[in-house]
Amino acid sequence: MLSRNEIKLIQSLKQKKFRDLHRRFIAEGSKLVMELADSPFRIVTVYALAGWIREHEENLQEKKIPFSEVTEQEMERITALSSPSPALALAEVPELGTLPVSPLQDLVLALDDIRDPGNLGTIIRVADWFGIRCIVCSSQTVDLFNPKVIQATMGSVARVRVEYCNLPEFLSSLDPGTKIYGTFMEGENIYEKKLEPKGILLIGNEAAGISADAAACVTDRISIPSYGGEKADHAESLNAAVATAVVCAEFRRR
Amino acid sequence: MLSRNEIKLIQSLKQKKFRDLHRRFIAEGSKLVMELADSPFRIVTVYALAGWIREHEENLQEKKIPFSEVTEQEMERITALSSPSPALALAEVPELGTLPVSPLQDLVLALDDIRDPGNLGTIIRVADWFGIRCIVCSSQTVDLFNPKVIQATMGSVARVRVEYCNLPEFLSSLDPGTKIYGTFMEGENIYEKKLEPKGILLIGNEAAGISADAAACVTDRISIPSYGGEKADHAESLNAAVATAVVCAEFRRR
Repeated sequence: MLSRNEIKLIQSLKQKKFRDLHRRFIAEGSKLVMELADSPFRIVTVYALAGWIREHEENLQEKKIPFSEVTEQEMERITALSSPSPALALAEVPELGTLPVSPLQDLVLALDDIRDPGNLGTIIRVADWFGIRCIVCSSQTVDLFNPKVIQATMGSVARVRVEYCNLPEFLSSLDPGTKIYGTFMEGENIYEKKLEPKGILLIGNEAAGISADAAACVTDRISIPSYGGEKADHAESLNAAVATAVVCAEFRRR
Repeated sequence: MLSRNEIKLIQSLKQKKFRDLHRRFIAEGSKLVMELADSPFRIVTVYALAGWIREHEENLQEKKIPFSEVTEQEMERITALSSPSPALALAEVPELGTLPVSPLQDLVLALDDIRDPGNLGTIIRVADWFGIRCIVCSSQTVDLFNPKVIQATMGSVARVRVEYCNLPEFLSSLDPGTKIYGTFMEGENIYEKKLEPKGILLIGNEAAGISADAAACVTDRISIPSYGGEKADHAESLNAAVATAVVCAEFRRR
């Protein structure tokens, strides 16, 4: 049974200002909830239908995760999805930005104003697949705890560290010698260029690409060749998450 | 000025049954509308705000494309987008399935029940980028003329041929000797396998993967290696459009 205050709180978390105020976010779906339960994120309460609770009760008790049974009608009131799932986790927004980032030791993704929640979530999933453990986002990038981002990560949010900062400042503060690869429409063909296995891989905004301030820090401009013939005969660009995946795959393949 | 009947017709086109009945679909946004205007699709009318019409009037008249001015309030009533754009094209659904598909001459994509409109649209954009001119979809794949598919193609719908058929029947009817590459979680590493530049590249459903009937026709099982370490330490899978892009990139790179 949900109180009116709980319903109001959970509904409010679709908006960033209330996530910031309450330091809470939601994650939905059986798989995602159980991935969060196994992660360093702290779950405040799992709200779930009776059948789901029966199935997962033991596991949740073992992990000391509080849960609360709700009816289908209640779930419909709190879900951010168009078709509600049997379980919704209310979790704590952790403090971010406490670990140092070391692009000299591994490949780190940097995102310059990715605005679409589905794109950010998919990029986190791509990073997770290709073993990239850290993503640094410009402060104008869509919020990690937006429900649509969390859902699109399909659980990868539990394994990839995502931080927000002033991106040009961060890029300028890196050790000299750090490779900063920027993806541009006009850059060196990634399949013909020597790629270092460590450094920053910078991805631009869906429409505007990499901003001038961030571009000024780029050491190597790269691009994915199109095989569609003349420029007018093929797509103008690739979706940001798709481009990230193609470039990450090439870095890791080498 | 829009008549009530026009408004009702356009609004109804969000549903497949009305697109099938009226043989019409909509495409929104300045760029997409102008790409359609340059394509073999037939535009019935472009509905647009006064400012947009002033800017494009000459071009539309040259192409003999009818247009009609609407107010912002009217645009809000007919748009399928959350924030309306200045132009919406009402276009004719063409007759499909008239050209033969020749996987012996080029790489052809086959989609086995892709359900998410954003994924299908993004896959069409990926195909366009990598110079793949034809996509064959199972009959359960989401409808090409769904407004969300059209928007996600970003105009590539004008350049890539998409057809629907009984996919296992189509695959079984191909010339013997046609390579049919299927993407699986467990398959040969695409980076270590010999890939022919021609054939079918089969992509499975977002959740269930490739169906048993279609899988029976596959000649080569391939997969994208994860670089995330142990299985439990990384994402379970890649998004369907992302996986398509990584595989297409590798086929074209060779």
